[in-house]
Amino acid sequence: MELLEKKILSEGRILKGNILKVDNFLNHQLDIKLFNELGKEFKKRFKDKEITKILTAEVSGIAIAAVAAQYFDVPVLYAKKYAGGNMDKDTYESEIFSYTKGVPYKIRVAKRYLDSSDKLLLIDDFLASGSALLGLIDIANQSKAEIVGAGVVIEKGFQGGRKKIEELNVKLESLAIIESMNETGITFKH
Amino acid sequence: MELLEKKILSEGRILKGNILKVDNFLNHQLDIKLFNELGKEFKKRFKDKEITKILTAEVSGIAIAAVAAQYFDVPVLYAKKYAGGNMDKDTYESEIFSYTKGVPYKIRVAKRYLDSSDKLLLIDDFLASGSALLGLIDIANQSKAEIVGAGVVIEKGFQGGRKKIEELNVKLESLAIIESMNETGITFKH
Repeated sequence: MELLEKKILSEGRILKGNILKVDNFLNHQLDIKLFNELGKEFKKRFKDKEITKILTAEVSGIAIAAVAAQYFDVPVLYAKKYAGGNMDKDTYESEIFSYTKGVPYKIRVAKRYLDSSDKLLLIDDFLASGSALLGLIDIANQSKAEIVGAGVVIEKGFQGGRKKIEELNVKLESLAIIESMNETGITFKH
Repeated sequence: MELLEKKILSEGRILKGNILKVDNFLNHQLDIKLFNELGKEFKKRFKDKEITKILTAEVSGIAIAAVAAQYFDVPVLYAKKYAGGNMDKDTYESEIFSYTKGVPYKIRVAKRYLDSSDKLLLIDDFLASGSALLGLIDIANQSKAEIVGAGVVIEKGFQGGRKKIEELNVKLESLAIIESMNETGITFKH
C-alpha cells in the first residue's frame, strides 16, 4: 500500500535491534485519517468474506481494529494483556512472547464473547516473528470460531512470521511488507 | 445521552465493590456503531472549540478516542501505561491510582508529541475518583498545552471525580452520569 510505505519512509525511525519505530502515526500518536485508509484497504482485501467480528490484542492493535471495524460493520474484541481485578475468570488464554520487551506474557479473552458462530478477522499492527498473531489464532481455535483471515499493517518480512501463519492455513494480508531494513534505509516487498 | 443509558441498563453488569462492568460494549468487546454515536455527541458538546489533538490513556480510552477523532479531524495521542523497551526516554509522566486494580501506576507521553501549541480534548471511558483524568491533566500541564475540555463516556457521579476536575477549571462533559447504583439497579443524573 503506497500511502503507508511513504508514511513509513518519511516518518518511521529505525532503532538498534531492528526495531522500526512508528509511534508518530501508528502506536502512540495515531494518524486517524491514515487509519481510515488502512481500514478501507483491509476491507478491499477481504471484500468477499463473511466476517462477524474483528479480534485484536492489547495495546497497539486496538485503535486500528476499531477504525477498520467501521468498514466491516462488526464489533471488535480485544484480547487483554493486563487482566484487571474485574476481568472475567472464564477466559481463553494464550502465552505469547514480546519481541520488543524480551519477555513472555499472556493474553486473554472472556469466553462469553467468542464462540463457534464467529467468523473472525484478526488484526494487528505488526507481524515480526508472528508470536502475537499466533496467540490470537490459538485463542480463536480454542473458541472454535472460524478464522477468515489476518490483516497486519506492517510485516517485517525477514523475521519468519508469515511462514508460521500460513502453515496454519490462515490467509494473511499485510499492507506493507518490509523486505530489509538497516540504518541506511528500508526496502519493501511488492 | 439516552442511547448510552439504555445500553448500560440493558448490558451492564454490577459487580461487588461498585464496579460497573460494561465489557460487552465498551472495554473488551467494542460496539463500534455505538462508538460512532459517542464520537458525534462529544463533537456536539465541544462544537465551537478549536481542538488540535485528542489525548487519552491506555488501555480503554484508546478505541473511543480513535473513533471520536474522526468527528474532530485530529490525531489521537495515548499515554502509555506499559512502557516498552523502545519507548522514548524523554517523556512527560504522571502517577495515577487504579480503582479497579488497587495499585498506583505511571502513564507516559513522549515529549516530542505534545507541546504548548496543542489544544487538547481529553477523553476516557470512565470517571470515578478522577485519578486517570487528573493524570492526563497533569501531563497536559507539563507540556503547557491548552486543555479545551474533558469528555468521559460514563461518570460515576457519587465518587467525587467531577469536583476535582472542575476545581482545575477543566470543562467536563460526561455522556452518562450515574447518580447511584446497587444490585437492584442504576439511577442516572440528568
